[in-house]
Amino acid sequence: MNAPAPSAPVTAAILVIGDEILSGRTKDKNIGYIAEYLTGIGIDLKEVRVVSDDESAIVSALNALREKYTYVFTTGGIGPTHDDITADCVAKAFGAPLEFNDVAVKIISERAKAMGTEMNEARMRMARIPRGASLIPNTVSGAPGFRIGNVMVMAGVPSIMQAMLDAVAPTLKTGVKMLSDTIRADAREGDVGTELGAIAKAHPEVSIGSYPFFDEKLGPNTNIVVRARDPEKLAAVKAEVEAMLARIKAQMAGSR
Amino acid sequence: MNAPAPSAPVTAAILVIGDEILSGRTKDKNIGYIAEYLTGIGIDLKEVRVVSDDESAIVSALNALREKYTYVFTTGGIGPTHDDITADCVAKAFGAPLEFNDVAVKIISERAKAMGTEMNEARMRMARIPRGASLIPNTVSGAPGFRIGNVMVMAGVPSIMQAMLDAVAPTLKTGVKMLSDTIRADAREGDVGTELGAIAKAHPEVSIGSYPFFDEKLGPNTNIVVRARDPEKLAAVKAEVEAMLARIKAQMAGSR
Repeated sequence: MNAPAPSAPVTAAILVIGDEILSGRTKDKNIGYIAEYLTGIGIDLKEVRVVSDDESAIVSALNALREKYTYVFTTGGIGPTHDDITADCVAKAFGAPLEFNDVAVKIISERAKAMGTEMNEARMRMARIPRGASLIPNTVSGAPGFRIGNVMVMAGVPSIMQAMLDAVAPTLKTGVKMLSDTIRADAREGDVGTELGAIAKAHPEVSIGSYPFFDEKLGPNTNIVVRARDPEKLAAVKAEVEAMLARIKAQMAGSR
Repeated sequence: MNAPAPSAPVTAAILVIGDEILSGRTKDKNIGYIAEYLTGIGIDLKEVRVVSDDESAIVSALNALREKYTYVFTTGGIGPTHDDITADCVAKAFGAPLEFNDVAVKIISERAKAMGTEMNEARMRMARIPRGASLIPNTVSGAPGFRIGNVMVMAGVPSIMQAMLDAVAPTLKTGVKMLSDTIRADAREGDVGTELGAIAKAHPEVSIGSYPFFDEKLGPNTNIVVRARDPEKLAAVKAEVEAMLARIKAQMAGSR
């Protein structure tokens, strides 16, 4: 029973920056995407915050999150307009000067030329990178994101963010991947809750979630999701849940 | 020019509770819905946090948010299973005992009976309400949410959450509604950014956001969103932005 101790989990937070999300004008599509992506590569997303385009809100959220988790991924606020203040805030949080980055200037200038537009003050804003940061390539529209310390600064436009995440992911430390299995209960949450709680209590190393859904034919139904890093423990708890569900179904059939 | 001072803005935060959102298994649909809803009734959503089904994470996020904003709306974790710990955590944050609420017991028992199921330990969990809280009706599936202090505790299932929000909204203090107008730039963000920044700087009382989008015909394009509570100020800034866009278009046509 003495399995080798698993390596410490690699954790992460997302910081979504933007008034447009908080006003409801734009519906965020990045949180769910990054969540699924990180789970897939063995990084545990532990927290998400959404803050407005406000310096003190951004700086204090960023400092809280980067202290607490292995990685922080920010989205939004790195475009060419006055309301894009993420780079300024990240520089401030790290106490690093924000400077024109030669490589970023070159990338953005060449992109502007290729698109038949001019390199101007607004576009130059996107070349301001905190000293000590490394660039995250943007294969979609040129202007790069950047990484400083454990913070990945990415665009808010989903297609660009996704390209940046692909670019930065291979450089990240990853943990043992969290495995999961979904068991369809064919019963209501309230019918399985008590016994499911007993199984969860007996297996603290396996996370058990219960998610109600509505089945067109059967009515209220439940998905039970078991999650663990150890495949054997996962399989054992899954079997226990399935046995419990069979027992409950037999009881319910008997009581009719 | 001495308009009456607007009343203090009414602010809010959302606290989304649930491992399933952080694992990416479930894609949140509540943040965008609540954001739009609150904007519509004159409440400014200022922050969102998503935390896991973990007591200390929930309690500390809730305490931070309820201190800071007029209202906090939580979603998720009030079902009948062991992983539903929101009521416990809210009670703990408020230092209030968590008790079986007679009205909630009655509602949930009657619902169970009507559905042909039994009132059991799991369903009784949903009747545990912090002392001093008032119930938020759930017209969809019975088991109520609750309000304690400035915190509204709602379900995570979108249809149920929406019904609860409808039920609680008329009881909330609301501010002067934030008005907004969208101006399609027909130009790239980088082409308008410098002048737009100058307009924003000259009108700190009007919030100006710039949001790139891709137009199938014209390619990269920009929506400029102006937001203010005062309709006259909004109209004045909108006119300034439109004049600026006309000027830039003329320049660009001239330079071809």
